[in-house]
Amino acid sequence: MELLEEHRCFEGWQQRWRHDSTTLNCAMTFSIFLPPTNGTTPPPVLYWLSGLTCTDENFTTKANAQRVASELGMVLVMPDTSPRGADVANDDGYDLGQGAGFYLNATQQPWATHFRMYDYIRDELPALIQDKFNVSDRCAISGHSMGGHGALLLALKNPGKYVSASAFAPIVNPGNVPWGKKAFTAYLGEDQSAWAQWDSCALLHASQADAATPMLIDQGDNDQFLADQLQPAVFAEIARQKDWPLTLRIQPGYDHSYFFIASFIEDHLRFHAQYLLK
Amino acid sequence: MELLEEHRCFEGWQQRWRHDSTTLNCAMTFSIFLPPTNGTTPPPVLYWLSGLTCTDENFTTKANAQRVASELGMVLVMPDTSPRGADVANDDGYDLGQGAGFYLNATQQPWATHFRMYDYIRDELPALIQDKFNVSDRCAISGHSMGGHGALLLALKNPGKYVSASAFAPIVNPGNVPWGKKAFTAYLGEDQSAWAQWDSCALLHASQADAATPMLIDQGDNDQFLADQLQPAVFAEIARQKDWPLTLRIQPGYDHSYFFIASFIEDHLRFHAQYLLK
Repeated sequence: MELLEEHRCFEGWQQRWRHDSTTLNCAMTFSIFLPPTNGTTPPPVLYWLSGLTCTDENFTTKANAQRVASELGMVLVMPDTSPRGADVANDDGYDLGQGAGFYLNATQQPWATHFRMYDYIRDELPALIQDKFNVSDRCAISGHSMGGHGALLLALKNPGKYVSASAFAPIVNPGNVPWGKKAFTAYLGEDQSAWAQWDSCALLHASQADAATPMLIDQGDNDQFLADQLQPAVFAEIARQKDWPLTLRIQPGYDHSYFFIASFIEDHLRFHAQYLLK
Repeated sequence: MELLEEHRCFEGWQQRWRHDSTTLNCAMTFSIFLPPTNGTTPPPVLYWLSGLTCTDENFTTKANAQRVASELGMVLVMPDTSPRGADVANDDGYDLGQGAGFYLNATQQPWATHFRMYDYIRDELPALIQDKFNVSDRCAISGHSMGGHGALLLALKNPGKYVSASAFAPIVNPGNVPWGKKAFTAYLGEDQSAWAQWDSCALLHASQADAATPMLIDQGDNDQFLADQLQPAVFAEIARQKDWPLTLRIQPGYDHSYFFIASFIEDHLRFHAQYLLK
């Protein structure tokens, strides 16, 4: 592990690290915020998954989540959104390849060699964080857009692993929208029966509400991708039918940008703190 | 005036505008945050001046000042740091030319045609803001590094115009440090007698404390530019001798980055609010 950057931030430390990922077969960069601690109780971790075209730096520099994470005593881990590098497969589109890993394990070449973001986020990265930093084993997960899809997906596929999950403008039903169809066709193949295990709506439909992870979703009603790509109401309707503990908030006037995320990230951190810190 | 972007943000609006500046003889872009209002009392304005290499977007996206500005009911205006464009003189260095206007009026060619940021920030931009937006005539000023120099300079040269001034890691004595010497030689010429009117230490030395603008400066003690370029203690010592209302805070471990600014911007906004909102 190589420390690339370190900055004092809200009485804690904002760091950027590079490490060699055995899951992804390439070097990966992640950012981490370490809150001030009392030296005795290891803090819990919130994983943040970013959206298409992002790296570990977008949320780190724009959301200002460190302020409330410092107050609450919560570690923030911000991974990259895909494997990277000259040896890693790519595509000319912003919505496929590097910057667009979709938090799944690809089965089709040329993607399958590196694109295993699901295993990386679920297993390799948390093991590394546990090993290298003073953190507790309690964790939660959140994300934006493609990263909101990732956060819901990881929580639904791993009951009990994350104490809570939240999302901003998530792609809840990738198997039925243009971004998801393009990515799933490339990463998983034409056979749509292989898609359901990576689709939050399908996963929620098959989930047991008695092992439910509490969830919070915020969605701006002026989001340019709401109608074609997002539609969190489809997910919320399945949750309603199952009596799943989901709160969907429609925020009037807000769009898909980080100005939206910055405006409501405090609520998400306090939502997760209810479960992480109890 | 052309609206380039608009985002809902903390119940207010974050906008980006382009206009033709008669002072700078080029098109200029600025960002503005408009807090939610009660519709009756026009809000006051805080001008923010950014540092070398920045545009109107750095503070807008990274400092998260909108949160507290929304709460306090304060407009934020973020101008660019210099004239811009293919017709505007430039230099290969990051610290001269476009992105490095130093908030002065250049007297030397090729700079004098466009580089009149002092007049733009003092006169043209506030007149435009007053004309196009619902704001009161009360204003304050703040900035970072080269922009901290600009904020102190504008306050010291115009007693009574700004109700308060603040700065993060300001260049307080440009006539005596490498960044300032390079810029002043180019913009103002070799004759150093012309430099004092653009140097905050010289201006403070010549100022009357009975018309003092209250000031707050934050400086990180791990700032890589502290010893060679900044030295706010030189400014603070002149203030002490004159009984000038300046608070200089040394923040342990903080550097020159926007993580430093984000950590303390709330204190600056509340400092200005004492004067802007009374």
